[in-house]
Amino acid sequence: MADSKLDALLERFGRKDRLALARLITRVENRSAEVSEVMERIYSKTGHAYVIGVTGAPGAGKSTLVNQLVVKYRAQNKLVAVLAIDPSSPFSGGAVLGDRVRMTDHYRDMGVYIRSLSTRGHHGGLSRAAREIVKLLDAFGHDIIIIETVGVGQTELSVMDLADTTVVVTVPEGGDGVQVMKAGLNEIADLFVVNKADRDGADRIKAELELSVHLRPAVGWRPLVLMTQASNDIGIDALVLAIGRHADYQREHHDPARDLERRTREFVEVLTSQLEERTERALKNGAGSAQHVLGEVRTGTLNPYSAARRIIEDHAAISRLLQEGGPRPVRD
Amino acid sequence: MADSKLDALLERFGRKDRLALARLITRVENRSAEVSEVMERIYSKTGHAYVIGVTGAPGAGKSTLVNQLVVKYRAQNKLVAVLAIDPSSPFSGGAVLGDRVRMTDHYRDMGVYIRSLSTRGHHGGLSRAAREIVKLLDAFGHDIIIIETVGVGQTELSVMDLADTTVVVTVPEGGDGVQVMKAGLNEIADLFVVNKADRDGADRIKAELELSVHLRPAVGWRPLVLMTQASNDIGIDALVLAIGRHADYQREHHDPARDLERRTREFVEVLTSQLEERTERALKNGAGSAQHVLGEVRTGTLNPYSAARRIIEDHAAISRLLQEGGPRPVRD
Repeated sequence: MADSKLDALLERFGRKDRLALARLITRVENRSAEVSEVMERIYSKTGHAYVIGVTGAPGAGKSTLVNQLVVKYRAQNKLVAVLAIDPSSPFSGGAVLGDRVRMTDHYRDMGVYIRSLSTRGHHGGLSRAAREIVKLLDAFGHDIIIIETVGVGQTELSVMDLADTTVVVTVPEGGDGVQVMKAGLNEIADLFVVNKADRDGADRIKAELELSVHLRPAVGWRPLVLMTQASNDIGIDALVLAIGRHADYQREHHDPARDLERRTREFVEVLTSQLEERTERALKNGAGSAQHVLGEVRTGTLNPYSAARRIIEDHAAISRLLQEGGPRPVRD
Repeated sequence: MADSKLDALLERFGRKDRLALARLITRVENRSAEVSEVMERIYSKTGHAYVIGVTGAPGAGKSTLVNQLVVKYRAQNKLVAVLAIDPSSPFSGGAVLGDRVRMTDHYRDMGVYIRSLSTRGHHGGLSRAAREIVKLLDAFGHDIIIIETVGVGQTELSVMDLADTTVVVTVPEGGDGVQVMKAGLNEIADLFVVNKADRDGADRIKAELELSVHLRPAVGWRPLVLMTQASNDIGIDALVLAIGRHADYQREHHDPARDLERRTREFVEVLTSQLEERTERALKNGAGSAQHVLGEVRTGTLNPYSAARRIIEDHAAISRLLQEGGPRPVRD
């Protein structure tokens, strides 16, 4: 299956060639057929990085906070990667700008790798792409991977499953949006940050968040609520320490059963998404083996559910379809 | 495959038994293994209903607007169904309340069917469940199906693909959240509604929206911008007329090629999601045939990508796995 082009790319990736990293990430974004082979071949190098998720309402100052975290971890000589998940909308212009700000701070620094992942067109596949990009960043040798996403919607939140520590950023004032997000985000937060803490109402929201924490069942880690002013570098050191405390807590309370569970879940996700992608690819490529059934579906003479069953229950048909959708020679 | 219990349920569904409808919707929500058979057996009865999507910022008054639409369509003696997609969070208490309000208005009216679908735990599967519930509501004989969802996030927005007409509700004031949504929602709107139009800034936002419409390429339907005060029944009749105009436009500009495209897309979605669900079910049930591979994955001796390839490329293994995940006798 391996083709020389991919071999060369992976070899350069192994030599810490950032351009090769960028190319491989692009392949993951485009769901190229080689992704699973790439993952097979880098997988053994993963498991080193610590993944920090930063999410919250738009305008909460997430990008500035992430910038400051990068500075702190770079001061500790850690290799840092930032994966910014942009809502795919005219509004993401803002996020792009945010990236540029980060770039001007860090682009000379080879110890920081920054990448945006648009949510556009991924549908269910966003968390899949994000998971695989994180694996690439991990295998590349980054110590810290920061995933930044706007805390709206199931898809966007599902990305936070990838984080070892999830930081939910909120601000004193904030309309409906923020409230919806607080609601959804409460459940996934390991740490709360009240940013722009110099503004009115900071203490009130801090108290609210602490109450919500204390209303939780008293088992496991209890989220901390921190105050920051990211733009003035106030409270960031404390945040870094809190992230470290959460990491220590997880190490100390490490539960092997959860590893089994996590590995099983990942396997199910990988297997099902590969079935999905191979099928989509095969059907896009004309679906040689499913041609006839597809034709009946297109003309409306066969309903999609009967058509699906006809293919799935025909062992030969489904096997052929999955092979047709398998990896092909790389085109660059 | 058919079991007598399912037969009886479908028979009652055919006799317009609302309890049978509710039971079948619950099976779709729980992704029970019979869903695809149910769909096969009702599919020929679908295609009659007109589907209206109503989305927008939280607090835009969507539920009130939907209530008023229900009243108008009931006055035309149409059978109406409402599918309310709730964000799965403490906040959805709001939506539940919204439902209760609707219920008190309509629960005596057998011409209105109202159902909430929680987004919790669906991940990529929310739009799948929504699509199949809409098919059930359609096959049951509803003339109008209104899907109401909060316009946040990719998953939530993807549900709007099901609508023949998508109505985006916005309000004069509104913070970040609303802007993000407007951004994402602009692209899917067939009609804009500025609700609570008695408030300051209504004309401004109407002008903004009309500008955004005129910035679009001048092909196809041009979204209209309407002003409403749903709570005072102002502008609702005009909205109903506008929805009718959009329906007429689609009929007049009907494009057979798009039917082919739509059917193909639906088939790909159905086929891939069935592969996914059968695999998940098989692995949950112990995955007899994949037992050995699964064991290696759980202990970490085999990476999930190699494991997936090993199963997919073994025709016998993948076929067995898909059969193991197939429909089973119904348990109620």
